[in-house]
Amino acid sequence: MLIDGNNYRTIWPVEGGAAVEIIDQTRLPHAFDIVRIATAEEMAQAIRDMLVRGAPLIGAAGAWGMALAMRASASDAHLETAAELLARARPTAVNLRWAVDRMCAALRPLSSSQRVEAARHLAEAICDEDVALNKSIGRHGMALFRTLAEAKGRPLNILTHCNAGWLATVDWGTALAPVYASHDAGIPLHVWVDETRPRNQGASLTAWELGRHGVPHTVIADNAGGHLMQHGQVDAVIVGADRVISTGDVCNKIGTYLKALAAFDNQIPLYAAVPSPTIDWSMGDGLREIPIEERGAEELALMTGRLPDGQVATVEILPVGTRAANPAFDVTPARLVTGIITERGVCRPDQLKGMYGHAG
Amino acid sequence: MLIDGNNYRTIWPVEGGAAVEIIDQTRLPHAFDIVRIATAEEMAQAIRDMLVRGAPLIGAAGAWGMALAMRASASDAHLETAAELLARARPTAVNLRWAVDRMCAALRPLSSSQRVEAARHLAEAICDEDVALNKSIGRHGMALFRTLAEAKGRPLNILTHCNAGWLATVDWGTALAPVYASHDAGIPLHVWVDETRPRNQGASLTAWELGRHGVPHTVIADNAGGHLMQHGQVDAVIVGADRVISTGDVCNKIGTYLKALAAFDNQIPLYAAVPSPTIDWSMGDGLREIPIEERGAEELALMTGRLPDGQVATVEILPVGTRAANPAFDVTPARLVTGIITERGVCRPDQLKGMYGHAG
Repeated sequence: MLIDGNNYRTIWPVEGGAAVEIIDQTRLPHAFDIVRIATAEEMAQAIRDMLVRGAPLIGAAGAWGMALAMRASASDAHLETAAELLARARPTAVNLRWAVDRMCAALRPLSSSQRVEAARHLAEAICDEDVALNKSIGRHGMALFRTLAEAKGRPLNILTHCNAGWLATVDWGTALAPVYASHDAGIPLHVWVDETRPRNQGASLTAWELGRHGVPHTVIADNAGGHLMQHGQVDAVIVGADRVISTGDVCNKIGTYLKALAAFDNQIPLYAAVPSPTIDWSMGDGLREIPIEERGAEELALMTGRLPDGQVATVEILPVGTRAANPAFDVTPARLVTGIITERGVCRPDQLKGMYGHAG
Repeated sequence: MLIDGNNYRTIWPVEGGAAVEIIDQTRLPHAFDIVRIATAEEMAQAIRDMLVRGAPLIGAAGAWGMALAMRASASDAHLETAAELLARARPTAVNLRWAVDRMCAALRPLSSSQRVEAARHLAEAICDEDVALNKSIGRHGMALFRTLAEAKGRPLNILTHCNAGWLATVDWGTALAPVYASHDAGIPLHVWVDETRPRNQGASLTAWELGRHGVPHTVIADNAGGHLMQHGQVDAVIVGADRVISTGDVCNKIGTYLKALAAFDNQIPLYAAVPSPTIDWSMGDGLREIPIEERGAEELALMTGRLPDGQVATVEILPVGTRAANPAFDVTPARLVTGIITERGVCRPDQLKGMYGHAG
C-alpha cells in the first residue's frame, strides 16, 4: 500500500535474496525504520520482538527465514534446526508453523544445491499468494459492506480490534482488506479503531495505515466499543485472527471476545477475515486447545510516545514494583461469530468445514 | 487509610474550615501531592480536572465547595450560583448533585450569618457519613466473599474495574471496602486490576492503594478479563458506580458493560457496591436517561509516566493528527448484575426499590 506516495509491502527481498528488508513495526507510528534481516536467527528475533507481527506476515517472515537459513547452510540438519527455531518464535498464530512446514515439505526432497534457489522462489510465492488471498477477502467483504451500506442508507461505522491491516500481512490486510476495497469503491465508511492495549497496535498501526490511505477513522479505548454498540454507533465488527479452528472458534488479539459478546448482545454482525493458512483443521475446541502466548509485563508497564519536543521516549506508567499479567490472545467461541470471510467467500462458522471440503 | 504509616482521608479541612486539602489524584502514582482548595471555583476546577474523582468523593468535594462558597459570601444569590457551578462540574455521577442539593436544602432556610458554620458542619457530616456507609458496604461484601472463599476452598480472585477504592471516596472505598475488610479479616484474596483506559485509574490508583495496604494484586489490560474468566481465573467481579437507578441499571466507568457481559457469559457473579447517595430514584431507563460524559481526546493521546531517570513526563502516543473519541461511562443493564451491595445489605437489582421502601 501507499506511504507518502510510495508503494510498499511489509517484507521484500534485497541483494538478490541474500537478505530481506522489513518495516520495524515497533517504531511506528513515531518513526518509519526499515531493518535488514540476513539470517534465520535475526528473523526469529524480529518475530519474537514483534518488529514483524500479524499472523499472515509472520508466516511470510517464517518462509523468508527458511530461505535465509538455506543460504547459510542447506544441510538436512540446518533445515530442521532453522525450522524449529522459526516455528517456535511465537506460539499462537498458526500461519508461522504452516509456512515453515510448507517450506520444509518442499525443501526436504531436494539436494542441498537446489535448496537455496527453491527456498527463495517458494518464499516469494508465499508472499504473492498472501497478497492474492487478501485481495480476494477484500472483494468478498466489500460485497457484505455494500449490502449493509445500502440497507443503512448512510456511511457505515465499522469497528476493528488490533491491527489486521496491510501491516499485518504482506499487503492489503485481512480485516482491513474489505475496508480498503470499500473505501476505494466509494462506499462511505468510518472505522472505530480499538487502541488495543497493551501493545496499542490499533492506535499505533491501524490508525497510522488508515490515515495514510485516507480512510476516516477514530481511535477509542478498548473499553468504549460496547457503549458505542448500545447506542447504534457500530454497524459491523470485523477482525482478523491468529488462528481459526474447524469449528469456527476464532483466536485473535486479547479483547476480541469482549467485543464479540457486545456485538452479539446488540445484534451487530461480527466477522473474522482470515486467509485459509490461518485455519487450523487439527483442532476441535478452541478454548482448550489453542496455546495462548503470555507476553512480558513490561508491555503493560511501558508506553512509548513523543515528548513535547518531538523526541521519542518510553515512560513507565505502573506504580513501582507492580505485578502485571499479559495474556496476548483470547478465543471467541463460534456461537458469537456471524461469519468467517476467507478467500473463498463468506460462511457461517459451522459451514467452514463444508466450504473447504473437510468432512469434520 | 494508611500511606507510609500515616492515616489519610482523601479530603480534610484546614485552617478551621477556611480551606480544605485534597490529594491530587492526577499525579498518582508518580507523585503524592497535597493541594489546598480555598474557594468554590477552585473546587469546581479540581472536580472537572479530576484532582478529586470517584462518585462519593466528588459528592464530598461538592459539599466542601459549598462550605467554602459560604465563607466568601453567604448571600442567597451566591448560594445558588455556587450550587450550579459545583453541580455542573461533572455530569454523570449523581452524588455530586445529591450533595450540593443537600447543602442547599439545609442552608436556604438559614440566615446568612448562620450559613458559614452550618455549611462546615454539614460538609463534615457528609464526609463522616460516607466513611460509615462504606464501612457498612465492606461488612456486607465481606460476608459474600467469605461464603465464596469457603465454597472455593482457596484464595479468591476478584476482578475490579477502575478505582472504587478509598481514593474514590472519603475513606474505605465502595468496591474495595469488601476487599479491605476481607483482607484484614484474613480471607485470602488476590485482585485482578483492570488498568482502565484511557485515564488508567486502575493501574494508577487501585494498584497504588492496594499495594500500600498490602493486598495481593495484578494489573491487567482491560482486554484481558474475559479470557481470565473463560479459564476459571476470576471468582467474582466487583465494581463501584457513578449512578445506579431504581431498576438496578449500573452506570460506571466505560468498559464495565464489557466485563459484565463476560461475567454473565461465564456464570461469574458481578456486584456493584454503592452507598445510597449513588442511587438515582428518578430514572427508569439507564441506557436512555443517564447523561454520559464525553471527555477530551487528549486522555487517549497522552500518557504520563516515569522516564528512565525517574523524571515524570507525558508522551503523545497516537499518530500525529489522529482523532479520538472518549465516552467516560457506560451503562450495564440490570439483567447482567448479580447483586447491588449498599450500606443496607446485598440485593438483586430488582429488589433495590423494595430494600429502600420505594414503591416503584
